Amino acid sequence: MIRTITYRSAMHFKALFFSAWLALLMPASSASDTGGLIVLQTDFGLKDQAVAAMRGVIRGVDRHIVIDDLTHEISAYNVWEAAYRLNAVIDYWPNDTVFVSVVDPGVGTERKSVVARLKTGHTIVTPDNGTLTLVADRVGLQAVRQIDEQAERLPGSQDSFTFFGRDVYAYVGAQIASDRLKFDAVGPALPDIVRLPYEKARQESDRLIGGIPVLDPQYGNLWTNIPAAALGSLGLKPGDRATLRISEEDKQRVSLELAYVRTFGDVAIGQPLLYVNSVGTLAVALNQGNFSTAYRVTSGPTWRVEITRVRAE
Amino acid sequence: MIRTITYRSAMHFKALFFSAWLALLMPASSASDTGGLIVLQTDFGLKDQAVAAMRGVIRGVDRHIVIDDLTHEISAYNVWEAAYRLNAVIDYWPNDTVFVSVVDPGVGTERKSVVARLKTGHTIVTPDNGTLTLVADRVGLQAVRQIDEQAERLPGSQDSFTFFGRDVYAYVGAQIASDRLKFDAVGPALPDIVRLPYEKARQESDRLIGGIPVLDPQYGNLWTNIPAAALGSLGLKPGDRATLRISEEDKQRVSLELAYVRTFGDVAIGQPLLYVNSVGTLAVALNQGNFSTAYRVTSGPTWRVEITRVRAE
Amino acid sequence: MIRTITYRSAMHFKALFFSAWLALLMPASSASDTGGLIVLQTDFGLKDQAVAAMRGVIRGVDRHIVIDDLTHEISAYNVWEAAYRLNAVIDYWPNDTVFVSVVDPGVGTERKSVVARLKTGHTIVTPDNGTLTLVADRVGLQAVRQIDEQAERLPGSQDSFTFFGRDVYAYVGAQIASDRLKFDAVGPALPDIVRLPYEKARQESDRLIGGIPVLDPQYGNLWTNIPAAALGSLGLKPGDRATLRISEEDKQRVSLELAYVRTFGDVAIGQPLLYVNSVGTLAVALNQGNFSTAYRVTSGPTWRVEITRVRAE
Repeated sequence: MIRTITYRSAMHFKALFFSAWLALLMPASSASDTGGLIVLQTDFGLKDQAVAAMRGVIRGVDRHIVIDDLTHEISAYNVWEAAYRLNAVIDYWPNDTVFVSVVDPGVGTERKSVVARLKTGHTIVTPDNGTLTLVADRVGLQAVRQIDEQAERLPGSQDSFTFFGRDVYAYVGAQIASDRLKFDAVGPALPDIVRLPYEKARQESDRLIGGIPVLDPQYGNLWTNIPAAALGSLGLKPGDRATLRISEEDKQRVSLELAYVRTFGDVAIGQPLLYVNSVGTLAVALNQGNFSTAYRVTSGPTWRVEITRVRAE
Repeated sequence: MIRTITYRSAMHFKALFFSAWLALLMPASSASDTGGLIVLQTDFGLKDQAVAAMRGVIRGVDRHIVIDDLTHEISAYNVWEAAYRLNAVIDYWPNDTVFVSVVDPGVGTERKSVVARLKTGHTIVTPDNGTLTLVADRVGLQAVRQIDEQAERLPGSQDSFTFFGRDVYAYVGAQIASDRLKFDAVGPALPDIVRLPYEKARQESDRLIGGIPVLDPQYGNLWTNIPAAALGSLGLKPGDRATLRISEEDKQRVSLELAYVRTFGDVAIGQPLLYVNSVGTLAVALNQGNFSTAYRVTSGPTWRVEITRVRAE
Repeated sequence: MIRTITYRSAMHFKALFFSAWLALLMPASSASDTGGLIVLQTDFGLKDQAVAAMRGVIRGVDRHIVIDDLTHEISAYNVWEAAYRLNAVIDYWPNDTVFVSVVDPGVGTERKSVVARLKTGHTIVTPDNGTLTLVADRVGLQAVRQIDEQAERLPGSQDSFTFFGRDVYAYVGAQIASDRLKFDAVGPALPDIVRLPYEKARQESDRLIGGIPVLDPQYGNLWTNIPAAALGSLGLKPGDRATLRISEEDKQRVSLELAYVRTFGDVAIGQPLLYVNSVGTLAVALNQGNFSTAYRVTSGPTWRVEITRVRAE
């Protein structure tokens, strides 16, 4: 015979009881005054109940936490993309924001679960699988602490092994955002994090060289990792023309001339352009078109771009 | 002649007046008590960090603003669709809601950035590129002010030229929603807005003629711009049959007979029906099917529908 | 001539007036203190304004209600999937959460609109079309009341027949979540609900038999309805091997051996595994792959799985 699954254990009941008792002791100022902010990022998509389960766990800790989404459409298992998106958006959020980022191909293996505090004060709750690579390099880590996955988890979830996003990360994020758990009390400090290898942007004589870490997927624009400031050393000013070469694993795929402009409207519809994107790096687009589709270029570690200035005769 | 549909009656205006008077009686309250409400609409999609950056900017101004989404799946660069969605939903939101709508193919060109206040009190922050066309025609503009894009923007964003959604529109929307910036202080008043041309619905003898401004994309239903009230002058009552002709650029694509019914369940599964949709205009569907796919009809300015009553012999 | 559609009637004015009067009588505790929580589920998708209209109606009742989404990507008209998602997530939400679930193929027919209270205290506002089947079976109903669709609806919406999600369910959900409408005041109690037939999981001698009610769509994993506890009676422990047979309408489609493991990382990349999913039932996956695509297996009432233990020689 097959028994009913009981989601609510005795332990969970105790936790509920404890919460109620705690509420009686709390002063009049409500949790909503703490202004806890959580931003969620996953590769779960929005078609099933996974993200809603995470939100429910957070509301169970403190229903007044402000919960926003970074994205839930990270390509499945793509830790690099999670690292990229986090790095691209974090500066726009208040310093006490707690990011919960769950792209976790190694769920249940020996990979650690951590809480990182950046030098800016931002907090990130995540598996330690490379997700922190880019923010650690650019912003800098203040400290990283390992979560004890058996102690710091949703009460009653000890028998679940595959949904750490809900049982551990959302729960710990809510505890921290609502100030029920202090960062220093999370668990042992770690000396370092797991970092993904990636090619740095660089200049070689009169060429800027870099990668295409990501596309702007809605429009098919290519976002390189070459910072806008590099244009100065090349002497390239708005209105100037440049040569763009794109290769994949050393095989040339694109070679064309295009204008470096401030905004899309500075070139005709359908024309290519080089511009500074919204995260401050060089990007390539077709005005009101899709460069990625038109030239069959995508993003990732195998792609390389090379930019040189076209000098007036 | 076909008159404009007026959703808001004089009686509604009185209700607004009463609410305003009530507000004066209320004690002084903090920003979080003001209940600032922002609704976001873009063509950015939810796959990258663009919408999250906008939300972060808003939280940076005032984390207690309530932020909701209209949609972020407007077809890329489709200003008409943005205008349509805004017009279809605005009546269902409190009058002090601030809509931030960013479908901005001309980003960085001479197109103006504006804040519009409607006669209902609703506020819309948007590029002035036609997005306001339908609400201006139906609800009416109280005033429009131009944003000084250099002065009214996220501090520190002066070197960014391509992401006005984050740097200007989200920021200005948050300033207004949280009452840090008064509408009258936004910038110079403008005499008029940019309007998109569009075909008005009309009656010619015993035929109702109109366009298909939009599909109900989840189900493939066609939404015309012919108001339900027009059926009265045709003498068409629930249960009657009608002839539907659909043409694209003067080429007939569909001609069929169908029932005018109150609800989908009034016809058999798989049968076509004519009904009044949730925004009060005539619509065409297949019960539990997809009319758009089955008959290869989409929406836009090139499509035309014609409806006549089938008289009993 | 085509007359104006007036959504806002005199009745609406009276409603506003009454609300204002009521506000003056209310004690200092604001609506935001009540902590009303609403979770929305629909098959509307997020491409148009339908969900935003529902949110606007809720904000119009009480802007401080916390609104979260379960999913809006239920397959069109798929009541079974709505029932499944609701059942899978409800335990993770506080007991006073109000779920508004609108997958409503019979909109406008004789199907009833109901408010259900579960034995846990959770509230669900939904068409009575089978959506409640699984929570009723697993959690249990405390009471169900029928909504009077003419009386309990958005003031001014009496002429709309196709968007009950906005006009009735969102509105009633907001009334209940904000404590303006008591459950007992909703309408007449009903003796029972509409239930969907479904095959129960069972054990026959040394075989576990069950269905595949749903996929984990982001990863292509199969989620059976066989509870994890059933493994005990089969003597299957982590690390043991099992035989999996999958058939569709009595035609065998898959027969393979796989390991029963605790986590994905316990098998090599690309290998199949049997595991306990995040809702406590047996599931089948390919580690970092897509089982559903690879083996052409989907979910629904026609699919059947059979699991036996492989005994060591």
